[in-house]
Amino acid sequence: MLFEVVTVDPPPQIKLRCQRTPAARDPSPKIADQGGNYLKECGRQGLLRLYELVLEDGTAISPYAWRTRLALERLRLPFVAAGVGFTEIKTIGEGQFATVPVLQDGDLFIADSWAIVKHLDGRYGGGNLLGSTRDQNMIRFFDSWCRHRLLAPLTRICVLDIFARLRPADQAYFRQSREARLGATLEEAVADRAERVVDFRRELEPLRAGLSEEPFLGGAEPTYADFIGVAALIWAGSVSTIQLLEPDDAVLAWFRRCLAFVGGMAPKLTPRSSLAVIS
Amino acid sequence: MLFEVVTVDPPPQIKLRCQRTPAARDPSPKIADQGGNYLKECGRQGLLRLYELVLEDGTAISPYAWRTRLALERLRLPFVAAGVGFTEIKTIGEGQFATVPVLQDGDLFIADSWAIVKHLDGRYGGGNLLGSTRDQNMIRFFDSWCRHRLLAPLTRICVLDIFARLRPADQAYFRQSREARLGATLEEAVADRAERVVDFRRELEPLRAGLSEEPFLGGAEPTYADFIGVAALIWAGSVSTIQLLEPDDAVLAWFRRCLAFVGGMAPKLTPRSSLAVIS
Repeated sequence: MLFEVVTVDPPPQIKLRCQRTPAARDPSPKIADQGGNYLKECGRQGLLRLYELVLEDGTAISPYAWRTRLALERLRLPFVAAGVGFTEIKTIGEGQFATVPVLQDGDLFIADSWAIVKHLDGRYGGGNLLGSTRDQNMIRFFDSWCRHRLLAPLTRICVLDIFARLRPADQAYFRQSREARLGATLEEAVADRAERVVDFRRELEPLRAGLSEEPFLGGAEPTYADFIGVAALIWAGSVSTIQLLEPDDAVLAWFRRCLAFVGGMAPKLTPRSSLAVIS
Repeated sequence: MLFEVVTVDPPPQIKLRCQRTPAARDPSPKIADQGGNYLKECGRQGLLRLYELVLEDGTAISPYAWRTRLALERLRLPFVAAGVGFTEIKTIGEGQFATVPVLQDGDLFIADSWAIVKHLDGRYGGGNLLGSTRDQNMIRFFDSWCRHRLLAPLTRICVLDIFARLRPADQAYFRQSREARLGATLEEAVADRAERVVDFRRELEPLRAGLSEEPFLGGAEPTYADFIGVAALIWAGSVSTIQLLEPDDAVLAWFRRCLAFVGGMAPKLTPRSSLAVIS
């Protein structure tokens, strides 16, 4: 039961992750003890399970779930990825959730990505991922900025790309809810995206300023602020059929540095998005 | 010579500040030792002097100088405020500066507000104002955001109010340089400011998120991030003839908290700006 995967057609790399243990990896000394403690907890309470939205082909497609995935990887916490469609969210737990991600830790179900990372960092990470309350104030500022300057414009750029790759059962719900939110049909919303993507890149200037002196917002290592931004780009880059960033953008270099640092992450980025690493 | 004030018509509260010593105030224990060290430096090297832009009536009118003033006050460092007009900047030092603020510390002249605060915090503040390199990355992010979401819109809202209160000798230069930058006459730039101020308030959402849990971005006490934002509001609030913030805005409460915390600051805010404390 511990390793049951409830996702429909889980992609291969997620199955693999479920079988991996921290011992097989190269954990940083700081987090290793927390990982060890975690494993004891696991034996008592069951493995962590992350409920998240997936597309028809199993690709994880929520920026809020991706930030949780990055936090789990950073903390070397093995987890079961439980993919659900939009219309299956009501099947999680006892049906008390309206959004994902939802984290199941033993008998505990936690909704909301901020509550989840507070739980994970407090219980398993020694508080290093979120830092001081001052750090957390600035992360909340950054998170709100990301909603306005990453998630909102990227939605208008990529919403039709997402729709095209949803499970058929989710498409009607998605079209109706998103068109009501956007005040336009999905096709109208993306009609001027060639200009919107130029605006989007220009508005990233504060992020470039924050990255002008050190590799990550967190300094020599990424913290949750970095993950919030990177998760938004993974989300859009997983579906986008338009180039999101210029090749020489410092934001792109940071995005790739974060993925390389965290390791274990294998987001399936579209070649057209410009975010995929050319190998 | 130490207390020479080079400003033309310095406002009374600036003259008063020059005569005050840290001992007459209620310094926080953390900074007091640094202040003590500073006084010894003073005896050797001469008093700090801050060159800054002033209006016809002596009001300090640069957001970059105001952040330096707030830092000086927070560090309990007495200083001489040396007000200059736009067309007098070339008289500072040996004529090597194109912008203010410029800080003179003994024989050392330092331009650029970021270089100034690095100097002040490193030499007299024990690094507490800027914090870790991680803190500084986030401050750089916040600083860039303030340029885009505070300074740029507030310029288009207040540029004619500034012009009207400049020294006559500065008006031609100001009109020419600002109209070139804005791509419009000053009158055209402010024509739609009633709508712009609504947009301006809406775009402050990330700042409200950053302030949702603690009194200051810096936590229980303001840090340089807080001062960057507050300085921009002081600058605009010193001239604005339009209401900038709604009375119940968390940003307004934070602005007033910062001024009260720092103490000693007496910006001459216009009643119409909505920023002045109603006494």
